[in-house]
Parts: sequence; C-alpha cells; structure tokens
Amino acid sequence: MSKTELPGRIRKAPEGFLDPAQIAKVQSGRRDFLRNAFLAAGAVAAGTAAAQPPKAAGFQGESEILDLPEHSKGLGQPVAARGYGAPSQFESNLQRRESPGLTRVSAASVSFTPLQGLFGIITPNGLHFERHHQGWWDVDPSRHRLMVMGLVKQPKVYTMDDLMRLPSVSRMHFIECGANTGMEWGNVAVPTVQYTHGMLSCCEYTGVPLAALLDDCGFDRAAARYVLAEGADGSGMTRTISIDRVLDDVLVAWAMNGEMLRPENGYPLRLVAPGLQGVSWVKWLRRVEVGDQPWGTKDETLHYVDLMPDGVARQYSSIQECKSVITSPSGGQTLLDKGFHNVTGLAWSGRGRIKRVDVSFDGGRNWRTARLEKPDEPKCLRRFNIGWVWDGGPAILQSRAIDDTGYVQPKINQLRAVRGSRSIYHNNAIQSWKVAEGGEVSNVQAY
Amino acid sequence: MSKTELPGRIRKAPEGFLDPAQIAKVQSGRRDFLRNAFLAAGAVAAGTAAAQPPKAAGFQGESEILDLPEHSKGLGQPVAARGYGAPSQFESNLQRRESPGLTRVSAASVSFTPLQGLFGIITPNGLHFERHHQGWWDVDPSRHRLMVMGLVKQPKVYTMDDLMRLPSVSRMHFIECGANTGMEWGNVAVPTVQYTHGMLSCCEYTGVPLAALLDDCGFDRAAARYVLAEGADGSGMTRTISIDRVLDDVLVAWAMNGEMLRPENGYPLRLVAPGLQGVSWVKWLRRVEVGDQPWGTKDETLHYVDLMPDGVARQYSSIQECKSVITSPSGGQTLLDKGFHNVTGLAWSGRGRIKRVDVSFDGGRNWRTARLEKPDEPKCLRRFNIGWVWDGGPAILQSRAIDDTGYVQPKINQLRAVRGSRSIYHNNAIQSWKVAEGGEVSNVQAY
Repeated sequence: MSKTELPGRIRKAPEGFLDPAQIAKVQSGRRDFLRNAFLAAGAVAAGTAAAQPPKAAGFQGESEILDLPEHSKGLGQPVAARGYGAPSQFESNLQRRESPGLTRVSAASVSFTPLQGLFGIITPNGLHFERHHQGWWDVDPSRHRLMVMGLVKQPKVYTMDDLMRLPSVSRMHFIECGANTGMEWGNVAVPTVQYTHGMLSCCEYTGVPLAALLDDCGFDRAAARYVLAEGADGSGMTRTISIDRVLDDVLVAWAMNGEMLRPENGYPLRLVAPGLQGVSWVKWLRRVEVGDQPWGTKDETLHYVDLMPDGVARQYSSIQECKSVITSPSGGQTLLDKGFHNVTGLAWSGRGRIKRVDVSFDGGRNWRTARLEKPDEPKCLRRFNIGWVWDGGPAILQSRAIDDTGYVQPKINQLRAVRGSRSIYHNNAIQSWKVAEGGEVSNVQAY
Repeated sequence: MSKTELPGRIRKAPEGFLDPAQIAKVQSGRRDFLRNAFLAAGAVAAGTAAAQPPKAAGFQGESEILDLPEHSKGLGQPVAARGYGAPSQFESNLQRRESPGLTRVSAASVSFTPLQGLFGIITPNGLHFERHHQGWWDVDPSRHRLMVMGLVKQPKVYTMDDLMRLPSVSRMHFIECGANTGMEWGNVAVPTVQYTHGMLSCCEYTGVPLAALLDDCGFDRAAARYVLAEGADGSGMTRTISIDRVLDDVLVAWAMNGEMLRPENGYPLRLVAPGLQGVSWVKWLRRVEVGDQPWGTKDETLHYVDLMPDGVARQYSSIQECKSVITSPSGGQTLLDKGFHNVTGLAWSGRGRIKRVDVSFDGGRNWRTARLEKPDEPKCLRRFNIGWVWDGGPAILQSRAIDDTGYVQPKINQLRAVRGSRSIYHNNAIQSWKVAEGGEVSNVQAY
C-alpha cells in the first residue's frame, strides 16, 4: 500500500524512539488504524453510506457494526473505579521522557513534556516537565515552613496554614527552562519537539503574591532592591530576583491546575516568577531574603549564564524572550497524504502577551498569519492554528511570534550574530521543520 | 488546647466522612499540623526569629532545623520516576467520591468533584466528575467512528484521523450536570460542597466545531432545526440540540486540559455543548443526525425535565443558568480561629460571562463585591475571592452571581415560587453556609 493511498493524517512522533519495543507497538497499532480508516473512507467515497446507520450500507467493516462492540451493549466500569483518574491505555506512549546521559544521575536531570501530542495550552500535571538539581521529594506540608527575612522590620516564619488563609490569586503562566532548545545552538538538531522545546509547560497557579508577604513583614521599601529565593532540597537552589519583578507579579504558590502542586514541581510550595526562566521558580520554597544587591550564588554565576563572544558571561538574563514552535507536524512525524492539514503550535513571551504569530511553509520567504486561540493572558502560552494544503513536495515549516512590545522572534543566525557560538541558554530562535517528499518531518536549521 | 489558641485556618472538609478510617487519618494529621504551626507562630510572636535562619533564634522546633530533614541533604527521586505523574501522598484524601445508594449500580451513578479542595478554575482530569448511564469504557480510537447523517447532501463516516486533521479550536468551558445541587430542592442539606455542587468541572477542550462537519456534509440550512447526538455506550444516550446552539459554539472534541479525553469522560470523542447541561455533552460520540424537529428521546422526556406546579413537565430546559458557590469555607470545614480569612468560590453562567459576584456574611442582608480572577471567558468557571474578618460569632455566608445578560442568581424560595416543589434538576439557587460559634460550617437553607 503506497503512502498516497492512505487517508491518514500524521503519524505521531516516535516519542519512544529510544525504546524499540515502544516504536514497534506504536507502528503496529498505526497500521491497524490506517487499514480501518481506509476501509471506512472507501465506503463513504463509494457513496454507499446513506442517511442510515452504516450497517445497512454494505459497509466493509460490517461485522464490527452488526456485531456491536461490547461497549455498546454491556455494562461498563463503575464511577471512580480507579480513584484518582488516569489516561486511556491507548495513550500510554505519551509520557515525559528523559534524554539519557544528559547528566551524571537522573536525579539531576530533565524530563521533557511531549508537546507533539498535546492540545491547547494547559499542560496536564502528570506531563509537566521536570528539572531537578538533586532529585525530588514528597515533602510533608504540615512540617514545611517559609521564612521571610533580611531587610524587613519583622522576620516571620509561615506555615502552609498561615499562607493559605491569606488573599490568594489564580493566574495562568508558562514556565520554560532557560536551557530549553539549548542543543540547537550547536546544530545538534534533536529529532522531536519533545526534546527541542519540551522544557516548557503552562498551568493555572494559585498562591499569595510575594509582595503581600513582604508587606506583612514590613520590608524596607527604600533599601530593598533584590530578593533571594531558596529551596528546601539538597541542591541549595538559590536565585536572585529583582524587587520590581517581585512587586509586579511573583507568587508564592501552592496549587497548579486546580490542585495542590505535584511533588516533582515543588509540593507544597514554590515560587511562580512569571516570564522568568524556570530555575527562578524555586521549588520546595523555604526562605525569602530581602537585600540590596544580587547574591551571586552558584546557580546564577556558574550556571544559567551566557558566554558571549568577548569571553564575558552575561548574567541575570533571566527573562524568557518571545518564542514559538510548531508542535504538529513536527520532527519525527510523517504526513501520510497530500491535502489539507491543520498546522498547530505554541507561542509565548516573558515580556507580556502574544500579539501575532506568522507561519511560513517555504523556509521564511512567505508568511501567513495564524489564528490565535483564547485565553489571551500575559506571560502565558498561546495556541495557534493555521490551515495548510500540502502538495506532496518538500517544504520547510516555521513559526514566528511577535509580542505586545513589538519584539519579533529572531532567526538563529540573527541570535548567533550577537551571542556567538558558545551559548547553552536562552535560545528563542525560529524553529524549522523540514517536510520531505515522502512526508517525513525532521529538524533542520534554515536561514 | 482551646480553639482560640490555634493559629490554624480551616480544617478541610471530611471528604471521607463515609470512611471513618480516612477521617481519623485526616484528623490526626491535622493535630500535628496545628501543634507545629503553633510552635512556629509562638517563636515569631516572641520576636526571637531575627533576620537569620531560625536555628539561631531559639526556635522551638530547633531539632528539626539543626537536624536538617533528609530532603534537604539527600539525593531525591530521579526525573519521571513515576511515569505519568500523580498527586502527593499527602493529598490522597482528595478524590472523586460516589454518593452511595444514589443509583442501583455504580456504573449508572455519579462521582463528585471535590470542589472544597480545589483552586482556580481548571479541574484536574483525574478529579473530573463522572455521570454514566451504563458505565464507562476505554474505547479503542483506531476503531471509533463518527457518522454524520440526516438532512445532509452527503452522509459521512469519520475516523479519529479524519477529524484531527481538520481546523481545530481550543476553548475553556465549564460542564455541569443538570441534576447538580438537586438534593437541595428537597431541603436535604447535603453536608459538603463536594456533594451539593460537585457535578461541576471546567476544562480547556480541543476539537473541531460541529458546524464545520455539518458544512462538510452539506447540511440543509433551510430545513435543519435540530441535531441529535448519540453515544456509543450501551445506554444509547441521545440528546436533541437546537441548530442555533450547534452553529454557535458546539464542538466535537478529543482533548481536555491539553491531553486526550479520559475514558470516563468519553475518550476518544465527546460533544462539548457550552452552557448546556452535562447530559448533552454526549460521550463516546458516534453519530450526529440533522433533523427538523426534536427527537423526544427517553433522556429528554423521561429524564432531565422539570415537573412544574401545574403538573406539566418542562422539557429541553437545558441551559445552565447563572450560579455560584463558596467552596471554602464550606460545609464540613471548621474555622479554627477568628480573624482574617480568604473566602473563595466559583461562579458560572450558561448564557455567557460572569459580570460580578457579591458575597454576604449575614445571610443576605449586606453584600460586598468579590474580586474576580482571570481569565474572563464565556460559559467558563470564574474564581472569586474576598477577604473576611471573622469575629468568632455565628454567620451565614452566601454568594450571588450576575452574568453579562444582567441575570441575578436567585434565592431558593424565588425558584420554588415558580417551579414548585417537585423539581430534581436545574437548581441554580444561592447556597448558604452557616458558621457556628465554634467555627463549624454547615449547609443550611436561608431565605
């Protein structure tokens, strides 16, 4: 059966390409899927499916229909049979995955969100990316404390109970690791969007503004210029954040997507620092100190800095600039036929709202404006969609986001012209996916 | 230790009040929590916690601090160690729960969302309420089909693959069962908000507008007045929806909160009928028929109708009118001390957006306007918050929502004046929670 006979749309990315057994399972499932889809489409094309149930129409899958599936006859599972729910067994391949060998131990590694299989902007908590510096713990909330100290009149220690009775807010924000898309600096061309852009998630957070806690402790408004946030994990994670940012929209949060934080995302308390790189969203938050200068801790001087062409490291460049990526079709997927395809992706900016997303199908020569979904919230993911009729020939797909400051997402060579070739972090360049004549989608760098 | 000594905020509702072992576990956890919180607060009040880590300040929990907890020293769990993630072990009491005996079998029952323990507006997929008529199934998406037929030029059978290549949209909407809060018609005063209002959830859905499929099949615009939606489960669930609604915003959806639907919520395909009662959001959607009159199926004539005082049943009253509820503090919780409390809840309207929410602390005599969180989307939950200083005396808490049509959520006696006393469905009355002098919160009807 040649590819052009197939009515299928996009073969999902082999998320499990590191696991041959998974690939085989997905591919074998896909073959059945395509065969069935072909039969069904054939029946329709032959005009045999009249305004009656398909069983009366000589439908080739007739035996399936006459002999109703068990789920259309029998008594199904009872409510809440599984306690806290879980995805379908048919979705088990969609998981967070680690890139093996990225770090010495998996407790100090990354697991990536499978963006190629997600929809809308909300990241399910079970698929939120992880980046730990000394592993995660399920910390007992009844024993957890947050201390606020430094340039304050009255240092205080808060219990979770103390915090949760204060006036709270709920806001949707993206979180992106500063190292997201880092491999692309080196032309590595990581195969799938899960590994190029998967250190990106988006949740609705609930918590108390850090500004309210600083007020509660009587912080020194005249002298305060920075805040240090410290986590309770063994890595001693500490980050400096400017007081302007803190007073603007930083939260001390206990909830994500409606429920309490997940242990791997800082349960029971984390900092939410909208627009800033993920490392500043300190997990298992235990201490906030108010000061008048940056602390220069190891995680802001040795790590998360950009080594510039002149040999000087750019520090504290923690705002995630405007960026976007097409999530489907994307690397590792295959277009199985010509014709109309919905092309979809995500856009975001640490500076504010997404104003526009353009998409090119010819490597940046021509651009069309994509449809943006709601909601339109600042420092939050924005889903875009655009229709594309594939003619079966080679194509290069790109997306380009523009935020409400007017900033336009750059090309990788524009970034390299400024940053040189030794960066690891803060790559917000336009991503290119090449569609080959056979429909295979791969990661390329196009200028 | 008397209640007034305690710095605690709100004891969570005994979600497990049907399970004494769970209650004991929660209560014993709470006692430790309070003792620790008291010690911490005592240290602060005594001014002994200076601008240094608490270990230097004679902090009474000193041994905990000097002897750092394991999670501040050791190597934690590796990334993605649990595959698809799960909530903290300390949150295991927060679950969907069935109200036993509500139906003959649990496969035709309800499990309620634990609103008392949730934040923001997004309902985690693992806690989305369930209402099945013949149980749930995990349907194989490669074998699932959707037929569109009736008053169309070309009936068609769609595979999931066919649907997912079409132009999709993502939107946030609430879903509420028409029977939500039904027990309150009869003065039953169900003890917690999980059981009074828990047939309510809110997700970001992704799918294709049903209007696009009707167009694709060339539906008869002149003759079409209704659409029938049919599910693939054994209950033969069928619902009539007016063509105006369909052309407005009804979706054929495959995703909720970023990932594919959960089996118990209709995987792989369900109708999303914004603003309409949940039963119209047909799960495991397999057939859509276009017609010129309502079908009058059992689920719209025998069930989900309102028996009016004159003995006539009101049918097709499927729009969920404007409603709100305070989720914390709520029935079954206990305020553990006087002073400031953040009072929070949810508001929604099947007609559009929430314009305002007022809260009363004296049973409706005086009202203050609450703060509304973003996003502000139509037919979507809206989180509200308002501060309240409890003086320790009895109080009756109420919330009253107003939508952008100007409709004001009614009192229960106003509804009864029109509907009489034999209704089961469509109760959108103001909910009253009584706070007793001891801080216990209970469900009362106040006029």
